[in-house]
Amino acid sequence: MKVFTEAEVKANYHMADAICDIEQLLKNMDDISQTTRTVIPTGDGAKSMLYMPCVHLGKQQGIIKITSITPDNPQHQRPTTQANIIITDLKTGEHIASLDGNYLTRLRTGALSGIATNYMSRTDSQILGMIGTGGMAYEQLLGNLEVRPIQKVLLFNRTIEKAKTFVAQVADKHPEIEFEIVSDVSDLVKCSDIINCQTQSTTPVFDAADVQNGTHINGIGSYRPEMKEMDNRLFPKASHIVFDDLEGVKEEAGEFIEADAKGLFSFANHHDDLKGCVVDGNTVREKDSITIFKCVGAAYFDLAVALGAWNKLNTH
Amino acid sequence: MKVFTEAEVKANYHMADAICDIEQLLKNMDDISQTTRTVIPTGDGAKSMLYMPCVHLGKQQGIIKITSITPDNPQHQRPTTQANIIITDLKTGEHIASLDGNYLTRLRTGALSGIATNYMSRTDSQILGMIGTGGMAYEQLLGNLEVRPIQKVLLFNRTIEKAKTFVAQVADKHPEIEFEIVSDVSDLVKCSDIINCQTQSTTPVFDAADVQNGTHINGIGSYRPEMKEMDNRLFPKASHIVFDDLEGVKEEAGEFIEADAKGLFSFANHHDDLKGCVVDGNTVREKDSITIFKCVGAAYFDLAVALGAWNKLNTH
Repeated sequence: MKVFTEAEVKANYHMADAICDIEQLLKNMDDISQTTRTVIPTGDGAKSMLYMPCVHLGKQQGIIKITSITPDNPQHQRPTTQANIIITDLKTGEHIASLDGNYLTRLRTGALSGIATNYMSRTDSQILGMIGTGGMAYEQLLGNLEVRPIQKVLLFNRTIEKAKTFVAQVADKHPEIEFEIVSDVSDLVKCSDIINCQTQSTTPVFDAADVQNGTHINGIGSYRPEMKEMDNRLFPKASHIVFDDLEGVKEEAGEFIEADAKGLFSFANHHDDLKGCVVDGNTVREKDSITIFKCVGAAYFDLAVALGAWNKLNTH
Repeated sequence: MKVFTEAEVKANYHMADAICDIEQLLKNMDDISQTTRTVIPTGDGAKSMLYMPCVHLGKQQGIIKITSITPDNPQHQRPTTQANIIITDLKTGEHIASLDGNYLTRLRTGALSGIATNYMSRTDSQILGMIGTGGMAYEQLLGNLEVRPIQKVLLFNRTIEKAKTFVAQVADKHPEIEFEIVSDVSDLVKCSDIINCQTQSTTPVFDAADVQNGTHINGIGSYRPEMKEMDNRLFPKASHIVFDDLEGVKEEAGEFIEADAKGLFSFANHHDDLKGCVVDGNTVREKDSITIFKCVGAAYFDLAVALGAWNKLNTH
């Protein structure tokens, strides 16, 4: 078994690769077999182990992503979430590689927002508003930059110092972009063509009344029922709401679970997912409408990027 | 993540270690958390991936055993079953080691037979009869040798050539033991103090009428409902029947599932497992009775040997 660190994966596999590989997989979902993920609590609160296996029957390759959640880790300068992906060659049965899964998880989530932005936002979108500048933010930025001619990025974070640190870390890598930190989230929401939310908030991070016609929103933060990042009063105003994975959103996305209960939205009448956008290949928006993409993740997205990264690493 | 090959695990972790570590774990089962295993079919017939996670809450260490089943592998000189074990440190959340799981699986299965033999067979057992000389046989031999003063080993295999190959491979390592291959399994059954079955047979490999009073039998072969290695007409004659894992036997052991349906045995009235033998610490046999141990395996046994092996490898 070959072992690849985060640095090695990062050096060989990039946002454009991830977007391409996920789109390819979405076009051939019949080849994918996965089960519900397994969770074993390992301590107080959210402390747990998550196991997400998935196989590609066509390519005869399988993965499992093994994730540890250690809530008190930040006190010890360690990440809360640590992921590792094991790849098995199903033709020979051999377990061939171990890939650090942290970067790949952030990258596939950024790629999903990129794909949604590509199919759902106005093609002339130039201003990106980012709410939340934590661990997932950079790859969310990259996903949007990959598909739209972004010239300006507005940033809001509850702790403004963290937004400053983020800009200090990324501005040099993107000299063509103007970065501006805002202290009032309303300013960001009113001015942005695309709003990208990546927080762990349990209350809405923006006011639905501030969202202008023609805006596309990506929400990747709420991945537990108690998390409610997006203001769900916006949902009735949206012309299109697309999910990365309907079953996952039903179980995990707090603002949608609440909206369904309150009658602001109905899972029963909902059929739009990213697979439909990509396979049908048409942009689903009118110029002046509001569109929303909600992402919670699923093992087959990890499969797409893990096999893609392995392919690059193995032939490098 | 550190990676250890089969040869490295084998050089540092042995049968006595495995027996000790499994007994220790059986005495502290409250510390163990596991879920049912996940199976994803990956092709025709039994071709599949198996995922068996398990955590030790006390030690704050977790494992997952990832096993590929590739039925046509023997045609290509590769093993049908290939296992890999990933260890996670739950205190830090770090994925710390990858251990080849093939030897550890054989070793823990041999250790389970060793533990059963130790608690259930006559202490003066000197003749061991082995039915089946395939991939699991050597560690089954080692498990019995570890706990009883075996002087003679009788061997039967459907293809006699394979029994000869097995003896040629192991005889030099055990010069104190007399090995004898028999062509009639009845001779083996009538003469043995302990009978150890490790076959994939779908029909009984011995006749219940041949089993003498005072014999102990270990059956490790039937791990699917269609497999029926032991003659279940023997079950009503046994003074004690002990399982490694009751839930697993109910689902997987063909001869017991059939016996329960036919009324030769009742799961409903059955409570003896290896945990009871070890924790209670008493041998459950009378001198002239027939005793049976049935083993199908479970993730917590893999946990015991993986953490034990890691401990040796990491401090070596």
